[in-house]
Amino acid sequence: MSEAAPLRIGIAGLGTVGAGTVSLLQADPARLAQRAGRPISITRVSARDRGRDRGIDLGGYAWSDDPLELARADDVDVVVELIGGSDGIALELTREALRRGKSVVTANKAMLAHHGAELAAAAEMHDVALAFEAAVAGGIPIVKSLKEGLAGDRVERVFGILNGTCNYILSVMRETGRDFVDVLAEAQALGYAEADPSFDVDGIDAAHKLALLASIAFGGKPRFDAIHIEGIRRVSALDIEFAEELGYRIKLLGSARLTPAGLEQRLHPTMIKKAAPIARVDGVFNAVGVDAEPVGLVMHEGRGAGGGPTASAVVADLIDLARGNRLATFGVPSSALADHPVAPMSAHRGCYYIRLMVLDQPGVLADVAAVLRDQDVSIEALIQRARNPNQPVPIVLTSHETVEARMTAALAAIGAFASVLEPPHMIRIEQD
Amino acid sequence: MSEAAPLRIGIAGLGTVGAGTVSLLQADPARLAQRAGRPISITRVSARDRGRDRGIDLGGYAWSDDPLELARADDVDVVVELIGGSDGIALELTREALRRGKSVVTANKAMLAHHGAELAAAAEMHDVALAFEAAVAGGIPIVKSLKEGLAGDRVERVFGILNGTCNYILSVMRETGRDFVDVLAEAQALGYAEADPSFDVDGIDAAHKLALLASIAFGGKPRFDAIHIEGIRRVSALDIEFAEELGYRIKLLGSARLTPAGLEQRLHPTMIKKAAPIARVDGVFNAVGVDAEPVGLVMHEGRGAGGGPTASAVVADLIDLARGNRLATFGVPSSALADHPVAPMSAHRGCYYIRLMVLDQPGVLADVAAVLRDQDVSIEALIQRARNPNQPVPIVLTSHETVEARMTAALAAIGAFASVLEPPHMIRIEQD
Repeated sequence: MSEAAPLRIGIAGLGTVGAGTVSLLQADPARLAQRAGRPISITRVSARDRGRDRGIDLGGYAWSDDPLELARADDVDVVVELIGGSDGIALELTREALRRGKSVVTANKAMLAHHGAELAAAAEMHDVALAFEAAVAGGIPIVKSLKEGLAGDRVERVFGILNGTCNYILSVMRETGRDFVDVLAEAQALGYAEADPSFDVDGIDAAHKLALLASIAFGGKPRFDAIHIEGIRRVSALDIEFAEELGYRIKLLGSARLTPAGLEQRLHPTMIKKAAPIARVDGVFNAVGVDAEPVGLVMHEGRGAGGGPTASAVVADLIDLARGNRLATFGVPSSALADHPVAPMSAHRGCYYIRLMVLDQPGVLADVAAVLRDQDVSIEALIQRARNPNQPVPIVLTSHETVEARMTAALAAIGAFASVLEPPHMIRIEQD
Repeated sequence: MSEAAPLRIGIAGLGTVGAGTVSLLQADPARLAQRAGRPISITRVSARDRGRDRGIDLGGYAWSDDPLELARADDVDVVVELIGGSDGIALELTREALRRGKSVVTANKAMLAHHGAELAAAAEMHDVALAFEAAVAGGIPIVKSLKEGLAGDRVERVFGILNGTCNYILSVMRETGRDFVDVLAEAQALGYAEADPSFDVDGIDAAHKLALLASIAFGGKPRFDAIHIEGIRRVSALDIEFAEELGYRIKLLGSARLTPAGLEQRLHPTMIKKAAPIARVDGVFNAVGVDAEPVGLVMHEGRGAGGGPTASAVVADLIDLARGNRLATFGVPSSALADHPVAPMSAHRGCYYIRLMVLDQPGVLADVAAVLRDQDVSIEALIQRARNPNQPVPIVLTSHETVEARMTAALAAIGAFASVLEPPHMIRIEQD
C-alpha cells in the first residue's frame, strides 16, 4: 500500500462512542492525515437501527446490517468494534476480522478481559493488530504509556480509579454525607449510572480494566477471574465520615502487583491518605498510577468515559495503525505472555480499617483487643466517639500492617461476640 | 536488518543520565529485547574523562575520546546524545549523526529549543529519527502522549510545572515561610540547585521544555525566542502568604495556547487555585496538563529529572526505534511545521494579583482604584491587613479578567504615585 493510500475503516456500533468517533474523523481529516501520514477514511458502518438520528452524517458510508460484513468487506482495512459485551456479536466480529487479516480497534474491556489471550494470539497469527487504548480509562493514553512510554521500566505496581460512576457516587457521598442508595438513585436520574448499575457499582467494569492494565504491566495473560472484587454498595456514610476523621478518602481502587506469592489483583473500596495525589481525583475522573523502576511514580488523570474522550483514544489507535506502528496486543509476543501464579488475598499484606457496631458495655473493647493481639494484629488508632450505655455504638479501629489471613480470622472471632451486633465491616488501607 | 539483529547504540555523555541509561540497558536485556522485538546493545561510549569511576561496567564497549566518532562509527546505529548544551559539541554530534543516516536520541532540551526546526528537517532528509522524550519532564512520557496518545485531538492548551528545582524552592518557601534567597542557598547546599542557579530559577530550563511541548501541541516550529519568561527570584514570602489567604498556590507555570492573536507562550510565576490538580504538585515533581478537544483535560505527573527517570525516557525512545516506530520529530512533517504568529504579551487576557507597598495615608486607595477604573480594570478582591498611619504597609488586590496592556498601563501610573514606595509587583492568575 502506497504512503498516500487511505486507511479504510469500518465502524461497528454507533452509540455514543461510535458517533463520537465518526464526528472526530470528520472534523479535521487533513490534520489527522498529517499526523497519520495518510488519510483515514470511514468506508462502512454497521449498527442495529439504521433509521436512528445520531446527529452525524453517515451518507458517504456503505451500511451493513450485519456487522460481520465489516470483517469480510474488501473496502475495510481496520474494523473498529464499538458494540460491546464480552461475548456474542462483538467477539464473533473481532475473531472474524482478525482471521481475515484485518486489524481491530476496540473499546471493549469486557471482551479483552475474558478473551484477551486468545484474541492476542489470533492477531499475531494473522499478523495484524488488536488495539484497545479506548478500553481502559477512556481518554487517558495509559495503554500507550505502559506499553511504550514506560517500556524500559520494570513495573512494581499499577493502580487506579477506573470507574467514573463509582467515583462520582463516592465523591457525592463524601460531599453531602448522604448514603449510597440515595446517591445512586440520583446518579441514575442524572444519567451518570445505568438503570442496572451492577456492572459499575459491583466493580465488574473497573476489574475488566484492571485485568488489562495488569496484563500489560507484568507481561501476563489477562486474568479477570483472578481479581479479588468488592464493589461500593457496603460503603456507608458513616465509613466516609470516619475516613475523613482519620485523614483518608475512600476510593474504589484497583491495584495489581507482583508479590512473592504471585500476581495480586484487587479491586475494592480503599482508604487512601488525603494527601496522596489519587485521593483528590473526584467526580467522573479516572486516574492511573504506575510505580516503576527506575522512573518512580507516574500519575495520569483524565476523563474515563464519554463519547469524546473514548473517541480520542479510538482515533489515536487508528493513527498508530495508519503509521504502521503495530505492537503486540499486551506489549510482548502472545506466546511470551506469562501465566503468573495468583496470589491469594489471604496472603495480602496491608493495613485495615474496621468498623464494629457494639453494645456499649464494659469489656467489649478488651475482648476485641485480645482477639487482635492473639492474631498478632497491632492497633494503630481507635475511635469510639459516642457513649450510650447498653445501646449500640460504632467503634472504629485501624491496624498496622498485617497479613489478611490474620485479619480475617480476627474478624470472624470478633463477629462471634454477642456484644458485636453486625458483621464487622472492613476496608483496606493503602499507605501511599 | 533482520528481526533479530541488535540495535547498536553509541552513548555520548556519561553523567548521571548517561550512567543511568547504561545501567538500565544492562539490568534486564532480555526483557527489553522482548518489548523491542530485538536486542538493544551498547557498542560504543564517549565521555570527557575515561578514568572516572561511574559505578558502571563499561568494559564491553569501545571508547571514543571524540564523541563525533560515534556519528561516524560503523558499529553504531543510533547515537544517544547526553552531553547537553544548546550548541557546541552536542549540536555538532547531532548534526553529524543525522547527516550520516543515524537516528539520534537526546535529552537536550536547550539544543532542540534553539535548533529544533533545523534538526527535524535534517532527520527527515536523511530518513532517520530524532527522539527526545527525555528532554521534557524526565520520566513522564508526555512527548509520546502528545505526539501519539492524543494525536487525534485538537490541543487547546498545554501547560505544566517543568522545573523541579523551582517547584522545590516554591514548595519549601510556602511550607516554611522563608524567603527565596534563603531557600535557594539551602537547595544549593543539598544539591537540588546548581551553584549557578540562573538556568533554573530564571526560567530558562523550563522555557526550553515549553517550546518543545508547544511545538508538538500546535504543529509549529519550536520558538524559544518567542516565550515570555519570568523566573521566581521576585516571588517573596509575602506573596506566598497573600496567595494562601486568597486561596491560591504560586507555581512557576509554563503555558502555551493558540489565541486569535497568535501563539501565546509564557513561563512565569502563576497563582493557581488551590483546588486545581496542578496546584498540589509539590517538591521536585513535574506535571503537564493537556487541554484538548474532544478528550478534555489530561494530566500527567512524575519525576522530572534525575538519572533514573530520564534514563527511562531514553530507553523508551530506543525501544521505539528498535521496533521501527519512527515519528516526525515534532509530530508532523518538518516542512509542514507552521510559523505561528507570536501573540504579544500585551494581548494576553487574564486575571492579575498586584502587591503594592504604600504609605498608609488617606486617599491612596482611592487613587489606585481610580487608575484601575480608568483602565477599565475591575477589582475582584483587596486586602490591606495592617494599619500603620504614615508608615509603609502592603496592599494586595486581584483583578477580574482584563487585557495585559491595560494592566501594564495601570501599574505604570500606580507606580508613579509618591505614596507608592516600590514598583508594583504583579503575578498572573490562572483560573483553571
